[in-house]
Amino acid sequence: MNAEIITIGDEILIGQIVDTNSQWIGQQLNKIGVSVYQITSIQDDELHILNALKEAQKRVDIIILTGGLGPTKDDITKKTIAKYFNDDKLIEYPEVVAHIKELFKKINHPFKEIQRAQAQLPSKATYLQNSFGTAPGMWFYENETVFVSLPGVPYEMKGLITNQVLPRIQKQFKLPFIIHKTIMTYGAGESMIAERIEDFENNLPTYIKLAYLPSFGKVRLRLSAKGENKEILEKELNEEVAKVYQLIPEIITGLDDDASLEKRVGEILKRNNKTICTAESLTGGKIAANLVSVVGSSAYYKGSFITYSAETKISLLGVSKKTIEKYSVVSKEVAIEMAKGAKEKLNTNYAIAVTGNAGPTTDHNDKSVGVVFIALATDNEVFVEEFNFGQPREKVINRTVSKSLEILQKEIL
Amino acid sequence: MNAEIITIGDEILIGQIVDTNSQWIGQQLNKIGVSVYQITSIQDDELHILNALKEAQKRVDIIILTGGLGPTKDDITKKTIAKYFNDDKLIEYPEVVAHIKELFKKINHPFKEIQRAQAQLPSKATYLQNSFGTAPGMWFYENETVFVSLPGVPYEMKGLITNQVLPRIQKQFKLPFIIHKTIMTYGAGESMIAERIEDFENNLPTYIKLAYLPSFGKVRLRLSAKGENKEILEKELNEEVAKVYQLIPEIITGLDDDASLEKRVGEILKRNNKTICTAESLTGGKIAANLVSVVGSSAYYKGSFITYSAETKISLLGVSKKTIEKYSVVSKEVAIEMAKGAKEKLNTNYAIAVTGNAGPTTDHNDKSVGVVFIALATDNEVFVEEFNFGQPREKVINRTVSKSLEILQKEIL
Repeated sequence: MNAEIITIGDEILIGQIVDTNSQWIGQQLNKIGVSVYQITSIQDDELHILNALKEAQKRVDIIILTGGLGPTKDDITKKTIAKYFNDDKLIEYPEVVAHIKELFKKINHPFKEIQRAQAQLPSKATYLQNSFGTAPGMWFYENETVFVSLPGVPYEMKGLITNQVLPRIQKQFKLPFIIHKTIMTYGAGESMIAERIEDFENNLPTYIKLAYLPSFGKVRLRLSAKGENKEILEKELNEEVAKVYQLIPEIITGLDDDASLEKRVGEILKRNNKTICTAESLTGGKIAANLVSVVGSSAYYKGSFITYSAETKISLLGVSKKTIEKYSVVSKEVAIEMAKGAKEKLNTNYAIAVTGNAGPTTDHNDKSVGVVFIALATDNEVFVEEFNFGQPREKVINRTVSKSLEILQKEIL
Repeated sequence: MNAEIITIGDEILIGQIVDTNSQWIGQQLNKIGVSVYQITSIQDDELHILNALKEAQKRVDIIILTGGLGPTKDDITKKTIAKYFNDDKLIEYPEVVAHIKELFKKINHPFKEIQRAQAQLPSKATYLQNSFGTAPGMWFYENETVFVSLPGVPYEMKGLITNQVLPRIQKQFKLPFIIHKTIMTYGAGESMIAERIEDFENNLPTYIKLAYLPSFGKVRLRLSAKGENKEILEKELNEEVAKVYQLIPEIITGLDDDASLEKRVGEILKRNNKTICTAESLTGGKIAANLVSVVGSSAYYKGSFITYSAETKISLLGVSKKTIEKYSVVSKEVAIEMAKGAKEKLNTNYAIAVTGNAGPTTDHNDKSVGVVFIALATDNEVFVEEFNFGQPREKVINRTVSKSLEILQKEIL
């Protein structure tokens, strides 16, 4: 079963926002056995939307549209869909009016007539209730094709996909299973790996696909398979993964399912009844924010110090003034004292501490832009690693966050 | 002049990565006066690539392909492009071999035969040198359409666009100017704004487009214009912006995406020589991360406490145990003590403190999901506001962050 995601809105085309909706929808569809054949981003323009629908209908069985469902003039999706279905009429759905009134009542806003337009849907639509907003979702089934129209606001779209769209697709179609396994490798280039696994690759069954995803010294090898029997697929993919392990054992760091690093770290900490805290300088809370983004993180995550200045490193974490003067605030020694201080103050099993220079200038210390120290204190020891993440600022901060979680994961595993 | 961006690679379709390349390319093309008409993400599949090229050629003047140029089996872009151009032949470009050898020498890797394949390009290609990697860029001009093929690795693609593709497009075509102005508003919904600027919107000239971009309590209003004379366009857009300012003065925080709240708040604090710190519970560092994301923030941002548990609110911020027992950890009173405690410990002029229940469950306190208290301590007083941000978790956290910055801005202005 193939799907196409169509996002409507100039904000993606002019580069004002990144299209994270399509990524998320792609993941969810894959999980229930639907392949995304194409993602198409188009303008808020009637003719363009009509053409995109026509072309997509030739290609796929399921079309998911996002965007253009708000109450303002630039939101033309509903009218255009009605036009696409042989000039269907827009009619008022009383259950949508009731839902909008209820939402407005909760936040003490008066219901205004402009909102009534949001309750008008094509007469052929099956209404999908949006628990988190006023724009309704819609489902159509025409000529053996499913059309779904959803608001572009991420949390509204997500609620509708999870609660309404996925269950309906599963009911409508008999779906296969799609499984991906990604092998993480470190320290070798694409072509080196390709040489070493050449025979393996040539002998892969046709229903298993291999893809190489290189980025910054890492290459992810993704094996994908589609089939009717989940157990058999799992078994076969695992066998192929084992073959790759045998061919390039020294460069493989692990298997990457779609669980994020912070989620996996959280699961391990929870299972082992361990706690953690963080002391952050250049990342200014981003490591903490990652850890806290996981539901249930309060079980293992105790808190964080964001010590952006030398003074606060001293006053909050007990870093010694002498250490800072001798080695500079961006140093192995300061990172170690930060980790120790945080662990002691918050009485946790682990503490991550980071200090570094994210740039663009080198400020008050002598370390060059991109230099970062990450320390990890455990119940038994404190160790520290030095990195140079180059530039720009954004990259240095983001790489510090992911490297910190990576170091933590290695340690607690 | 219209362009289409085509990204090749299953990793985008299965949601393994977010397509940030297209966003960046969209921004760059807009800056030189090229509109992106469509973005299309397709599979590593010959037929699919051929079809996408054929359809795009009907729609636009410039087609930019990214991805599928690596040295491995799943990289089929080059062969497919050759096929598209009447079965063009791949020939070895000696300057590409020389470039690859030079790159490998720099990192002390031996040159291997598998790399030689990367130097084979369609005979009709104009070779574009990739300063940061081995995969070459290519430029074709056929039937008045420009075709550009670039590697998918972001920093390689960016180098090629900046140094080679944009200058060539500017040389090839006479381009208009495209200008966007974005007005940032806080604290009002889309439909409320639409009502208040209805007459303005109805009277906009046809070559100026207005778009509403709502997200978490903010609405961005984007005015876009295209034309031959940059000065006139700028002047006209500025006049329209001034009209909007007159209509909704109290909810506008500034112009353009650069005018983020954290940037403006930072500017004011810096100008007034004031300092700030934060004490965060449910947001787990996100307020701090926002403040720190601004270059030069160390001048006014002193640090943060992330006190996710009741214990750390007591031990780090000096919140009284009695207050927590009497009012619960999610309460006005605790928010106030957190703000006071943080301000005192870090000796700043302002302290923001937040406590709340982001859900999905209500845990150990009696406050319903979505309830948040935001306190602000200044040199003269401490005040607190109560909110209900509903659900889901992601929305509660994000709205708490933007509301905190909004409260801070109001106070320091």
